[in-house]
Amino acid sequence: MAGRLSHVGENRAARMVDVSPKPATERVARAEATVLVGEAVAALIREHGGVGKGPVLETAQLAGIQAAKRAWELVPLCHPIALDHVEVSLHLADQTVEIQTTARATARTGVEMEAMTAAVVAALTVYDMVKAASKEVEIQQVRLLEKSGGKSGHWEREPQRS
Amino acid sequence: MAGRLSHVGENRAARMVDVSPKPATERVARAEATVLVGEAVAALIREHGGVGKGPVLETAQLAGIQAAKRAWELVPLCHPIALDHVEVSLHLADQTVEIQTTARATARTGVEMEAMTAAVVAALTVYDMVKAASKEVEIQQVRLLEKSGGKSGHWEREPQRS
Amino acid sequence: MAGRLSHVGENRAARMVDVSPKPATERVARAEATVLVGEAVAALIREHGGVGKGPVLETAQLAGIQAAKRAWELVPLCHPIALDHVEVSLHLADQTVEIQTTARATARTGVEMEAMTAAVVAALTVYDMVKAASKEVEIQQVRLLEKSGGKSGHWEREPQRS
Amino acid sequence: MAGRLSHVGENRAARMVDVSPKPATERVARAEATVLVGEAVAALIREHGGVGKGPVLETAQLAGIQAAKRAWELVPLCHPIALDHVEVSLHLADQTVEIQTTARATARTGVEMEAMTAAVVAALTVYDMVKAASKEVEIQQVRLLEKSGGKSGHWEREPQRS
Amino acid sequence: MAGRLSHVGENRAARMVDVSPKPATERVARAEATVLVGEAVAALIREHGGVGKGPVLETAQLAGIQAAKRAWELVPLCHPIALDHVEVSLHLADQTVEIQTTARATARTGVEMEAMTAAVVAALTVYDMVKAASKEVEIQQVRLLEKSGGKSGHWEREPQRS
Amino acid sequence: MAGRLSHVGENRAARMVDVSPKPATERVARAEATVLVGEAVAALIREHGGVGKGPVLETAQLAGIQAAKRAWELVPLCHPIALDHVEVSLHLADQTVEIQTTARATARTGVEMEAMTAAVVAALTVYDMVKAASKEVEIQQVRLLEKSGGKSGHWEREPQRS
Repeated sequence: MAGRLSHVGENRAARMVDVSPKPATERVARAEATVLVGEAVAALIREHGGVGKGPVLETAQLAGIQAAKRAWELVPLCHPIALDHVEVSLHLADQTVEIQTTARATARTGVEMEAMTAAVVAALTVYDMVKAASKEVEIQQVRLLEKSGGKSGHWEREPQRS
Repeated sequence: MAGRLSHVGENRAARMVDVSPKPATERVARAEATVLVGEAVAALIREHGGVGKGPVLETAQLAGIQAAKRAWELVPLCHPIALDHVEVSLHLADQTVEIQTTARATARTGVEMEAMTAAVVAALTVYDMVKAASKEVEIQQVRLLEKSGGKSGHWEREPQRS
Repeated sequence: MAGRLSHVGENRAARMVDVSPKPATERVARAEATVLVGEAVAALIREHGGVGKGPVLETAQLAGIQAAKRAWELVPLCHPIALDHVEVSLHLADQTVEIQTTARATARTGVEMEAMTAAVVAALTVYDMVKAASKEVEIQQVRLLEKSGGKSGHWEREPQRS
Repeated sequence: MAGRLSHVGENRAARMVDVSPKPATERVARAEATVLVGEAVAALIREHGGVGKGPVLETAQLAGIQAAKRAWELVPLCHPIALDHVEVSLHLADQTVEIQTTARATARTGVEMEAMTAAVVAALTVYDMVKAASKEVEIQQVRLLEKSGGKSGHWEREPQRS
Repeated sequence: MAGRLSHVGENRAARMVDVSPKPATERVARAEATVLVGEAVAALIREHGGVGKGPVLETAQLAGIQAAKRAWELVPLCHPIALDHVEVSLHLADQTVEIQTTARATARTGVEMEAMTAAVVAALTVYDMVKAASKEVEIQQVRLLEKSGGKSGHWEREPQRS
Repeated sequence: MAGRLSHVGENRAARMVDVSPKPATERVARAEATVLVGEAVAALIREHGGVGKGPVLETAQLAGIQAAKRAWELVPLCHPIALDHVEVSLHLADQTVEIQTTARATARTGVEMEAMTAAVVAALTVYDMVKAASKEVEIQQVRLLEKSGGKSGHWEREPQRS
């Protein structure tokens, strides 16, 4: 399963992986995050704001898109990537806000971190916008769903889980 | 439990809460995040890098500290706060990396978002540094642990949970 | 009317005004911007998106709020200010989007630049979101409306204009 | 004239346009802004500072160049673009500062926002540097002048206008 | 002379010093940097651009001022500080550009890093602007000159040196 | 030796060089910086922290890598470049910390500024982390070591110097 930690150099110093020998190819990655908000907060969002209806989900959506563009600023060893596309969608369920993200670029390295950063910052923003209503809100299970492009090829999380 | 969503204005426009009438008082917040890395990756970190021994945990620690200072840039309606202190500690368990953060400031508003952002970006960085070794890595349960200062007083998550 | 250009030092070098001798007092500034979008685009926004109904105006609103917090990064000699409040509201008229902003802080210097930056970046974002529909869109008349706090006292633009 | 708002997805959520199918071609855009400073301030700039003579216009010029590089940070749905060239020139007229900008890149999407952002932030900086001398200063008419590259081809604003 | 490295915690993890117990007092720091440009480049700057006469020194001056405001973003364990004043002056000597900076704030911690960052980034910008003319350009001796405010009191570098 | 200052336009306005006619080729640059810390501080770093052993050198290393990615934000006329690789290594000598950096990209312009920025910010971070132990610490001799790619070809500093 696991081989070697790519960011750990021989002398244990952190290093940014050299991607210059790799060709620039189309890269796509999808990620998801869940924010447990509880029934009462979910009801407030449903009544007072949601995608197309109001600001909680839309604010989080924009925050996620913007953060994807800045993943390389937040994550120290992440390469700067000029994204071709970012998509963040939020769905309000009974007790949770479900976030799905897609990042796409023509690049020498994958865009997992961009998709993950979008998911995480969208979740953080949902948290910010509802935290006054409940301290029980928490971010759950942020993870990669799919990845394509690059030498390692296509990978998709098996659906049975969760 | 829940009252009203503080960021939703009357006309459903997003708004930044006006904190000018509040006094600047000492604010503290603590948060935690768990990254499930699996046994194999945990073993790699244990052998090749950890706090005091190498770069995975230390890189994540620094990323978390730096991100706390930029929470207001990432989260659209978050107030800019000049933090007095940020602390991020990481602990490697059997299958997980456990992250705990503290943010502290003398401010007109709480520092929960700073503590949460530190936790989330430290977790994202752990993910980045081990993702080549396993795609099963995921961020689990990011949540506030404690909060003090301000009108709402002291709050601490009840310990029994988890 | 005009006295002396405050940012021009004796030797003609740019300089940041020293505000350390000034007390920190409550500062407020309001600004406005108009984006001429034309009737056809205004109709599209009215039908497909607006504050509370969709993304053009809401995206611009959030962009304005976020930009206010970063005025000091954009404008070279602007002081960093920890804003207590930013408000950006957008109103769709027959042919225009009207933007009004308010910035508030307890600071040693005024917050005009924060209010102006919010107005300008909200306008830029409206432009971005409708530019595919018409190249005739333009930003018109960005200006300060009111300013209070500090030694120079309260100032308000006379209403007769426009 | 106007067709469809490109950033509004089907479900009214904001979206970043997917430019991955487009080829990277040379893109150029030019924009302009006018800052009405009034005769007295224009005289002060003329005597105490201007391009080649002092800091007001030069500071604004640099601020405009720097802002063009960060358009994607300010405008939420704007793509990150690695600009090949930015040019900002300022001309002092009787009562106004006239700003012209050019942005150039080899990219999958146009660089209008980069040219517009340069114009707007240069104007904002002129405002900042003269605001102590007069509150009547205002930014007027920021607009695109020309655009080339990409599927939509060359477009230039008709000169008679203004 | 040297006691203990303040940023190294007990467990060798990096840490941001907790300044919350300290009072906010007036802090000042001055630093200097020297850029060796050589006689030929110095002559080019003298003839074609300098503070008050052109862009090399003025561009560096503005870059230094702007960087001081962002020291906390660049230096991982540096506290965010809202500066009251930054001053950067450049002097062209026979073979060098001499840079002096001052940073000032009312803060719980010193502003040495802000003065140092201004000096270093101004030097870097001089380097950038003349590097096409000579690869022999180098930055020499960046150091603190003076520091006041805070518990450790006033300190000034002894003048005999250099 | 020196020809013409590339950033100074005809009218003495600062300008960003237009690199659009140049092909994107592989660019590499190496730089170095020395921080004089003194024997006592060097001993403290040796005992309490170093690359692989602790945070002073590792924190500086990460700060250097991160800063390289942001060179274009700090240096006004620097082009934004999506780096393929950054390497920062630090070596503790008797009285100094020696920093060496490498930047690599496929770009239309060189990456000297990225390598220089990494060196300078790593040095600044060493300074920050040891400044409480000694005010005599200073940054010495930041300079380019090697540069390849682009029309001007390969250049390497002659080794005898130092």
